Parts: sequence; C-alpha cells; structure tokens
Amino acid sequence: MTAPIADTDGRFAPVIEGRDRKGDVILVCDHAANAFPPPWGDLGLTADQRQAHIAWDPGALGLMRGLAARLEAACVAATVSRLIYDCNRAPDMPGAMPAQSELHQIPGNAAITPEARLARARAVYLPFQTALHDLIAERIALGRRPAIITIHSFTPVYFGKPRAVEFGVIHDADPRLAVAILEEARRRSTLNCGLNAPYSAADDVTHTLRLQATPYGLPNAMLEIRNDLIATPEAEDTMAATLAPVLAAALARLGPPRKEP
Amino acid sequence: MTAPIADTDGRFAPVIEGRDRKGDVILVCDHAANAFPPPWGDLGLTADQRQAHIAWDPGALGLMRGLAARLEAACVAATVSRLIYDCNRAPDMPGAMPAQSELHQIPGNAAITPEARLARARAVYLPFQTALHDLIAERIALGRRPAIITIHSFTPVYFGKPRAVEFGVIHDADPRLAVAILEEARRRSTLNCGLNAPYSAADDVTHTLRLQATPYGLPNAMLEIRNDLIATPEAEDTMAATLAPVLAAALARLGPPRKEP
Repeated sequence: MTAPIADTDGRFAPVIEGRDRKGDVILVCDHAANAFPPPWGDLGLTADQRQAHIAWDPGALGLMRGLAARLEAACVAATVSRLIYDCNRAPDMPGAMPAQSELHQIPGNAAITPEARLARARAVYLPFQTALHDLIAERIALGRRPAIITIHSFTPVYFGKPRAVEFGVIHDADPRLAVAILEEARRRSTLNCGLNAPYSAADDVTHTLRLQATPYGLPNAMLEIRNDLIATPEAEDTMAATLAPVLAAALARLGPPRKEP
Repeated sequence: MTAPIADTDGRFAPVIEGRDRKGDVILVCDHAANAFPPPWGDLGLTADQRQAHIAWDPGALGLMRGLAARLEAACVAATVSRLIYDCNRAPDMPGAMPAQSELHQIPGNAAITPEARLARARAVYLPFQTALHDLIAERIALGRRPAIITIHSFTPVYFGKPRAVEFGVIHDADPRLAVAILEEARRRSTLNCGLNAPYSAADDVTHTLRLQATPYGLPNAMLEIRNDLIATPEAEDTMAATLAPVLAAALARLGPPRKEP
C-alpha cells in the first residue's frame, strides 16, 4: 500500500476495495499496514522492528486480496501500524497501544497520556471501525447477510519457541463458521490446522468480530496464517488459491443468508 | 426539541447533551422524537397518529434529561420518529421501518424498496449509532467505563389490554445492572416493577445495548416507564427525582468502573 494520508480532521480511513462485489462475505485486515505516519512517527523503533510481525501481519493484506478476488468479497484494510493503534483491540485493552510486544519495548508507547490515547483512538480506531460498520450495516439494509472474516498472520517463532500450527481458525461467541472452515481445511488442504490456535478469544483477539459481527448475528471467524507461508506475493497467491475453496465450502455449509425484511 | 435538520449529506445526527459531565453513565433515548422531516414526511399518518406512542416514546426525553442532570450523565437523543427509522432496531429487523405498529397501518412503510431502506439507514440509523459509539469509545480511551442505560416509555393500553406494570427493566446478555436497578426500585419506590416487562430481549428490543455496550463489556440496561406516569413536564421531573437515586444506588452496587489501561 502507498503511505496513508489523513483527512483534514487527522483521521486515517481504512482502504475499502470491492464495494460492489456480489459475494456475501466481507474480509477484514486489521493489521494490514506497517506505516508510521505523522504525528506519531516511528515510536523509537528501528527499521528492522518496523518490518517485523510486531508492527503488522506480514502477508495478510496480499492473502486477503487474493481471497477477495476469488470470493467476490469486499475487503477492508487498516492503513496504520498496529503499534500506533491496534484496530482489533478496544481502547482500554493494553494491546491497543502496547508498551511491549513480544521481546520488543515500544518507546513511543511507554507513557501515553489519556489525552494521547484518545487522540489515537479518534485518528485510527474510530475511522476504521466506523467505515467497517457502515459497510456491514448498509449491506444488511439491502437484505444481505455478509459473513465477516478477519485475516491475520502470526510469527513462526514466538518468545523463542517454534509454532507447529500453520493455519488457525479462531471464533468468538458463535463457533459455527470457524468450525466449518476448520473441517473444510482439513479435508481440502495439507495445512497443519488448529481451532483457536495459536491463541483464542480469551486472549482478547476477537474485538473486531465482537464489535461488528456478533451484534447482528452474522457468521464470523478469524483466520491466522503462519507468516513464513505467505512471505512472497507468489506464496500469498498460492495460499489464497488453497483457502478460497475452503472458505466457499464452509460458507455454503451454513446455508443461504437469512433475509429478515 | 426543535425540528431536526439534516446535514449537507442528508444525515440526521442525534442530539448529545452533557458531553463534559463527569458521571460514568451515558443515557440514550432511541425514541425521543416524533418529527417527520423531509424527504419522508408524514408517511400518510394523521396528526393524532403522529402524536401517539407508535411514533415515539412520549415523556422519555424529558425523563432522560431530568435523570441526566441528577446523575451528571451525558445523554443522546434521536431526532426523527421511530416510524421513519427505529434506531433501536437493526436494518433487517421488521420493526426498523414497520408497515404496521400496534393497530395502525403505516402507509409510507407498506412497500419500501431495498434502496429506500438503505437511504433511511444511512440518514438516521448510522449517524445515531456512530455518534453514540464515538461518545462511548472516546470515554473508554480516557480510562472511563460508562454504564449505558436506554430510556423508553410504553403505552398503558396495548392491543386493547391494560398493562399493570409501571416500570420495567430489561436486560440483554448481561443482567447485572438490570437486576440491581429492579431491586433498588422495589426498595426505594412504590412503582409496580417488572424484570423484562412489558417485553424482553427476545422481542428484539435491545439492539442498541447489544451494539454499543456488550462488545465493550459495559454495564447496561433498558428502562421502560408507563407513559401515563410521565405525561407532563412536572410528572417527568417527579419520575426523574424518583428514579435518579435508584440508578445511583444500582450503579454503586456494581462497584467502581474497571479501568484496564
């Protein structure tokens, strides 16, 4: 992505692609970007740290775009590093503006005043969640019932320990879509799959699903792909080709979307 | 309230009062107004119908303001009749733009196209819920944990049948605050009180709580006052004087707000 640009109110809107696509899926990439724009800048991090998984989910944006094209899905991507504001966290969660991430101290987050927390929430979190909510609610008003699937990647080695799982599916209150995706992935791929792995909703990682999908009773799930499997554009596309039929089959198992009006 | 005015995008923002008050309560009146502004107009209803409980919750706005002043609470009020768009309903719920309400046909809602449903959701529902979400999330970013209490009134006679209950407290997934309010009301007032009366979350009446409070784990409840008890400004104020200590005692029982950061 090109460098993000704030609007005249200093708000960083997410990128929304495929608004007019007909599929009843909305894909979301909370951690698509490792941009550190003004007024925050690099938070005292090195260039290597700003490229690392602590700053974003490498490969997730390309994977999402490959899936979106194959599923005729709209997709929504954050444009600012999760270390400035992690859009998948409520403003009072420690991980929203973390002072430490895995082994790394984040100097610019060591002592954030309440007013600075508010300013970051206004500039990054609220524009992201509002744009996503508008997209979802507008489809619902038209009688559509989109599934909400968030796309993440995780590091193969965490706190020095290798992770064997390659593809994790995480659910919040409603497990239906996650379980269907897991079963289809085991049937249709050779990926080492895990449910609620490498972490779960108990780790406060399902905020976007909880905020956007649960209140409307929309099918939802969070996908986690080990980032060494999507480390190049070609690998992202290969993974999208693997996972698109998995998601399509899982969605088909849930049946046609309920249309209330 | 004065007649509502849309912004240049045709959006009807809610009225927000007491933004700077220090109490950790936000009061919400989804059905504060019986205004029928352009481009919709009167939906084919008579003046009497537009004054009736089907169009709004009579007395609820005045009661909310009386409570807000006593509790140092911010409050948020819809500015358009619930028959144009009921902000306490998701866009696919039949009650969002009902073709019938109690005994009354709503001619202007008899055959709404999907595009017209979308236009109403964009003009009324999204500005209301977005403004409320901004208010809540900004307080959370500052380390505050507001309780969310919605204020409604109900008709004493429904489908010809009198209702004995005078004060109902309704909860969604988290019953804590509702149960505390009910117990304090029984202790501190002579009102005929009911839990989940005269209806309950199963009737799809808790959308605003589900959308705004549950995702953040905020204490929340929906209050219903029989509208013959708040039929004049004096009665509204008397009821506010009765209920303010009830709410204050119930909130105190939940303990100090959790502050995560």
